[in-house]
Amino acid sequence: MATRQYTPCEDKSATFTGWASTGTAHLKPWSYHPRPLGPKDVEIEITHGGCCGSDIHTITSGWGELQLGPVIAGHEIVGKVAAAGPESGHKIGDLVGAGAMVDACGDCVECNRGNNQLCAKKAFTYNDVYKDGRGGLTYGGYADRVRINGEYVYKVPANITPAEAAPLFCAGVTTYAPLKDHGAGPDKTVGVIGIGGLGHLAIQWAAAMKCKEVVAISTSDSKREEAKKLGATKFVNSKNPEEFNAAAQSIDILVCTSFDKNADWGALLSLVANCGKFVLLALPEAPLVIPAGALLSRQVSFVGSLIGGRNVTAEMLDFASKHGVRPWIEKMPMSDANAAIKHMMEGRPRYRIVMETEAAAKV
Amino acid sequence: MATRQYTPCEDKSATFTGWASTGTAHLKPWSYHPRPLGPKDVEIEITHGGCCGSDIHTITSGWGELQLGPVIAGHEIVGKVAAAGPESGHKIGDLVGAGAMVDACGDCVECNRGNNQLCAKKAFTYNDVYKDGRGGLTYGGYADRVRINGEYVYKVPANITPAEAAPLFCAGVTTYAPLKDHGAGPDKTVGVIGIGGLGHLAIQWAAAMKCKEVVAISTSDSKREEAKKLGATKFVNSKNPEEFNAAAQSIDILVCTSFDKNADWGALLSLVANCGKFVLLALPEAPLVIPAGALLSRQVSFVGSLIGGRNVTAEMLDFASKHGVRPWIEKMPMSDANAAIKHMMEGRPRYRIVMETEAAAKV
Repeated sequence: MATRQYTPCEDKSATFTGWASTGTAHLKPWSYHPRPLGPKDVEIEITHGGCCGSDIHTITSGWGELQLGPVIAGHEIVGKVAAAGPESGHKIGDLVGAGAMVDACGDCVECNRGNNQLCAKKAFTYNDVYKDGRGGLTYGGYADRVRINGEYVYKVPANITPAEAAPLFCAGVTTYAPLKDHGAGPDKTVGVIGIGGLGHLAIQWAAAMKCKEVVAISTSDSKREEAKKLGATKFVNSKNPEEFNAAAQSIDILVCTSFDKNADWGALLSLVANCGKFVLLALPEAPLVIPAGALLSRQVSFVGSLIGGRNVTAEMLDFASKHGVRPWIEKMPMSDANAAIKHMMEGRPRYRIVMETEAAAKV
Repeated sequence: MATRQYTPCEDKSATFTGWASTGTAHLKPWSYHPRPLGPKDVEIEITHGGCCGSDIHTITSGWGELQLGPVIAGHEIVGKVAAAGPESGHKIGDLVGAGAMVDACGDCVECNRGNNQLCAKKAFTYNDVYKDGRGGLTYGGYADRVRINGEYVYKVPANITPAEAAPLFCAGVTTYAPLKDHGAGPDKTVGVIGIGGLGHLAIQWAAAMKCKEVVAISTSDSKREEAKKLGATKFVNSKNPEEFNAAAQSIDILVCTSFDKNADWGALLSLVANCGKFVLLALPEAPLVIPAGALLSRQVSFVGSLIGGRNVTAEMLDFASKHGVRPWIEKMPMSDANAAIKHMMEGRPRYRIVMETEAAAKV
């Protein structure tokens, strides 16, 4: 079943169990032997696991067939350190979290400029191959335990609950990093397309960064009031032509959290101010069809952003702690992982599902 | 025949004659009455007119049906000042040039930050409507004369011949401005897709800006040696997979002068370094189909650039004068305008056609 080559690397003395996909949204309990705990590694007893859109794209094969055997998704991981290598920088019992990447070389141009997520040797948290020479595959957080390079494990700030912390590790940094990278602040109007797991955090970051205006853009009028509670100064229902057209060319940094493959990219670009940026945070399952004139005639940039590196992840946690940015979550037991996935595929969470394991009772 | 509304504004005492299109590449002599010479206006007796790709897109209706009646194309204009309004800043007899825009408000946010080309009241040099309240249409440089707001008329530097100056006013600034905007210099590798009217100047600018590497990318191996003469440090034949793949992720600023509507944008984006920029200078006649992953996974920007404002145009002329940047041109008589267009549509010029009027003999 694994069609992509990799070198196995297993600690036969340990067995971790999670909810695995073999290419469809139906998850089944499945066990694997993790990599041996290296000197820099941490073993986390998972208490909370957020559910991210990427999980759905992956387990349903929307981004392509699975090539590495069963996938345990989940890259919004919180739990307690259960074992720590001597060089891991963590200690047993600490409440920690990890996000969408679990390894990078630490020494290339990208790592040195803080873009660990662009390192050629990075490993995503699940459905990926380690490139550090030890071999092995990555398995994610829909599980009881996980072992990860301690450099990609972060202490949860004391004033954030473990359940609320989980979504910060992917949705949080994915939305915080591009706002920082592209200069969000009091001189900029920020727009957010899609008010969901990512978007509801993007709105909060932009508000906390005191952006000139924070414009929430949604296809659903039902989110108008919630957007304002999250900190939006303006709401645009994209199905209301009058409201949509009135917002034309008004947004300096427009982050798109929607992965609608049938999006009208030309229309969305019309919202961006001259020389502004359209920042794609989510990966649609089909190529983008973009009228070039929109980019050329107003010098708009269409740019992608991928999670964030170590430094910006740590900064994001600190910013959330200080500015009261918290995901709005719905808790479900991880034993109901399939129900959580179904709830999510129906687009119903307000705004992030966090699954709790039995160990959650202990924190 | 004019399907777009405008207010006529004609000086019946003057008649200018040019080569006009009514929607196909076949040009015919046609006369019009220009706008009255305003206090800021200049009348240019045209000696030289460069032929730009935009001219072809317009006159063949490739960018859409003509909505303002016959079009006199041409926006690489050089000639002598034949009349000058008292506030024009020019004097009779001066050798001057003008490019792809002939008016803007001068007082909006965009004009104030030097982006006159993004001013909502700008007027392109032909096939456009003036928005300064006086009415009238714009007609371009495939003609004996033209009247233009003197703010968009520039003195030709003494060490540049009139024929060589002409292409600088569109091809020159269109390629110079984005290199400056996006930080071309010794720490950047610049790539140029398409070695033609625009590309052969982009290569020269990048070389004169002492960029780390200047990579010329072409579908035609016949341009390999010429690219090096222009200043390229490297040549990539995009039809040679080995050469193409070897250049992957190597270019910080990749300017695309090709308007091939069937371009493989995903493949071209693969040449851009992480966090690099793909800068579109030419407007293809079909929407771009872009695989989002290329932008997202490496945080590449896809950005458009449109000619340049007044300040950067003046700076470009000065830079060309000081650094010996000159277009490679083929001269043809403007009386053979149709032959020039045909030559261009066949992709044969090396690299810019400049048409000469009878008045050229006088300069």
